[in-house]
Formats: sequence, structure tokens, C-alpha cells
Amino acid sequence: MRRPRGYPADMTVRAYRRLSVEERRAQLLDAALSLFAHRAPEDVSLDEVAEAAGVSRPLVYRYFPGGKQQLYEAALRSAADVLELCFAEPQQGPLTRRLSRALDRYLAFVDEHDAGFAALLQGGSVVETSRTTATVDGIRRAAAEQILLHLGVPAPGPRLRMMVRTWITAVEAASLIWIDEGKQPEVEHLRDWLLDQFIALLTATAATDPETAAAARAALALEAADGPVGVLARRVIPVVSEAVHLL
Amino acid sequence: MRRPRGYPADMTVRAYRRLSVEERRAQLLDAALSLFAHRAPEDVSLDEVAEAAGVSRPLVYRYFPGGKQQLYEAALRSAADVLELCFAEPQQGPLTRRLSRALDRYLAFVDEHDAGFAALLQGGSVVETSRTTATVDGIRRAAAEQILLHLGVPAPGPRLRMMVRTWITAVEAASLIWIDEGKQPEVEHLRDWLLDQFIALLTATAATDPETAAAARAALALEAADGPVGVLARRVIPVVSEAVHLL
Repeated sequence: MRRPRGYPADMTVRAYRRLSVEERRAQLLDAALSLFAHRAPEDVSLDEVAEAAGVSRPLVYRYFPGGKQQLYEAALRSAADVLELCFAEPQQGPLTRRLSRALDRYLAFVDEHDAGFAALLQGGSVVETSRTTATVDGIRRAAAEQILLHLGVPAPGPRLRMMVRTWITAVEAASLIWIDEGKQPEVEHLRDWLLDQFIALLTATAATDPETAAAARAALALEAADGPVGVLARRVIPVVSEAVHLL
Repeated sequence: MRRPRGYPADMTVRAYRRLSVEERRAQLLDAALSLFAHRAPEDVSLDEVAEAAGVSRPLVYRYFPGGKQQLYEAALRSAADVLELCFAEPQQGPLTRRLSRALDRYLAFVDEHDAGFAALLQGGSVVETSRTTATVDGIRRAAAEQILLHLGVPAPGPRLRMMVRTWITAVEAASLIWIDEGKQPEVEHLRDWLLDQFIALLTATAATDPETAAAARAALALEAADGPVGVLARRVIPVVSEAVHLL
């Protein structure tokens, strides 16, 4: 039960609505995530969370008796649940179409939670613990597993696994830079560039790793000429065509 | 004045050598770095630093009156000085030869300081502060500036800058994974793969960014057929040759 965008946070009338335990919990987490999205967790007070959710401070404590640390971890967990689902996608059609949809979901989350996303990934918060670090690592692991499933290699060798993990880090880094630069370029361009990076890394790794080469061949066979790989290939040719001395 | 490898840390005889202030300071930083390399800063005591350097605890305090926090920051600063110099390289010859030498230096540092390098980059230490975060960011910035100089584009547009920063993150991530996986594959293979990634990212970004395309063309013109780009190109062709339906 996410609060609709634009719904005023101080409409205390919401405090009087009868919500189920699950709805109330979701409402509190949502209020907390919105606040953590714009300020570091240590700068957010429980009073503010209560006010943003239009409830009393004791009610926040009833749901989260561990106070801010527990609320922060639960909010992080709920963000992680969303992020971990980003790369879940039916395993059919061209790989780039599946990754493109996954990136759209991921970048929509980044866009919505910008400062909170940055705080989450960069750590350094005083409420950061080994548990929150494990949560972030869990998101990365889930994303890697999904991508490897899409590549048809659920149990990869070290090279392909390293390539996928490296690309996930590149996606994170590019997202942080994107937030930092006032969300330039447009999100669709960022997505297409990250997709191009994936194709480039897969191809470069295929050059020296037979397992990756087999996965790349299988993936390429499903791509269409008007899809991202075809467009990238036709654009790369003019750049490299002057370098025939290298072949 | 680095302590030679294999020099026993508990040879207290060293305490009686007359060292200059600078030599003593370097010796203490070196002892601290060795300890921080294998354990998180919060688990290292000043007594251990004193013992590793073969000096008394008061002497450590005389050089670092701020105690462990100051010693940690100074050790980090000295590590940063080494890392920032990694990518400094004469601007002549093929780009891949320059980057290859830079990666050799960087990965030698990673190899020598493994756990300390991981702790440094992953943060989460209780002695982590905004100053230490700024130091790590400074290393990344210095590396990016050097690479952009090698590309002949000291003041790049957002796309090329993002590409270089993304690759630096990929190098960091791959280094951490490499440590995590017991330093497999061999460091030369890791270096060559990171170099292949750079070529792949540069080429993919050149597809949609004219500035990057110009830099890539200029870089390719300096490459030799038996260099990394030539080898990569000849290895990639068999993988993509089945995908002529995309052209």
C-alpha cells in the first residue's frame, strides 16, 4: 500500500483511517523511505516519521519497538525487496529486451528514491551495520543470479560471474553519477548506454572465455537487426573501420 | 622508506636506530598500513602498531598525537599517494600500453595490501569519516583525470567522463572480487581482461558519443596489430561472425 504521489504528508486525517496491521506497517515504511530518500538516516527523527505518516510517535514504536535502527533496517529491507525483483523477468525473447525492462524498473527506483538510494549504496551512515551491508550485497547477488539465468548459465565459471558482477557495479556507479549530475542524460539514454555496456562487456569477455562465448552466441542468435545489438554494431563499425591495420 | 619484505616486524633492534623524523614517520605509517591491511582499523591497537614498528607507544603518540584516528588517516593518505600515482605515465605510445602499466602498478598495490585495500574501499569502518571518504574519492578523481589526459580529452563531456568513471569503478569491483576469490585468475589475466573492458566500453560509448568516437579513433590509430586491441578484435570476430543477421 504505497502512498500515492502528491498525497500531502501532513494530512493527519489518515491517522484516523482504520488500517490493517500490514497496511499500517507498509505506510510507516513508506513514510520512512521517503524521508531516508532525502536525508541521511541519522538526520531523520522518529517524530518526523510519525508526522510524515500522520500517526503518533508511540504508534511508530508499537510497530518498531527497536526504534530508528529497526525502522531503517525494515525500510531498507522493503527497498531491497523491490530492487531484487527488478531483474526478475520471463525468460523469453531477446536478452536485451529483458535487460532493458529490468533496467527500466531499476532506474525508476533510483529516480524515485535518489538521495536514499545514494545513501544506501554509499554507506557511511552511523546506523550502517553488518546487517544493512548484507542487505545491499543481497540485492547485488539477486541481480547477478537473475542475469545469469537470462544468460542460460545458472552456475557460471569465475570469468562470466565476474563479468556480470562487474556490470552490476557499473550500473550502480552510473546511477550514482546520474543522480549527482542532476539526472542527465535522460533516463532512456542512460538505460540504452548501460545496455550497450553489457553487450560490450559480454563480447569482450567472450573473446577469452569459452563459456561466455557460448552464452554470447546463444544470446546474439535471439537478437533482432533493429534491436540494441544491431544498432550498436552498425554504429561501432564506422569507428573501428579505420583500424583495419589491427586485423 | 618502506620496510623491506620479510624484515621481521618484532626486531626491536630497529628501535635503537637513529631515524630522521621523516624516516620514523614513514616507518610508523608502514607498520600501521601492514596491520590495517590484514584487520579492520577498529581491531588494531596502538600498542600493536608500536610493537610492529619496534618502538614505544609514547613514541607513536609523539608522532600522531591524535591517536589511532590520526594514524589511520595518515596511513590512508600515504596509500592514496601511491594509488594516485599509478595512472601517471608518459603520454606517448599506444594507449593500451600506458593503461597496462598503470593497471600493473594498481594491481600490485591491491595484491600487497589486499585486506587493507578492501577495508579502504568498502568503508563501514568505525573510524571512517567524511575525510577518509574524501580521500578515496580523491584517488578515483585522480585516476579519472590521468586516463582522460591519456585519451587527449582533459575537459570531457558528460558521456566520456561517465564512461571513464564507470570503468574505474569496474576496476575497483573486479579487484575486490579478485581478492575475495583467492586472487584468481592470475594477475596478468585480470589486467588483460580489465584492459579489454576499457576497449569495449570506449568502443560502445563511441557508438553514441561523437567526442568519445574521436578519442577512440585517435587511440586506435596508435595501436599495433600485435597489441591488446588487435588481439581482442581477432578474438571477437569469431563470436560475432554468426550474428550477420544483425547488420
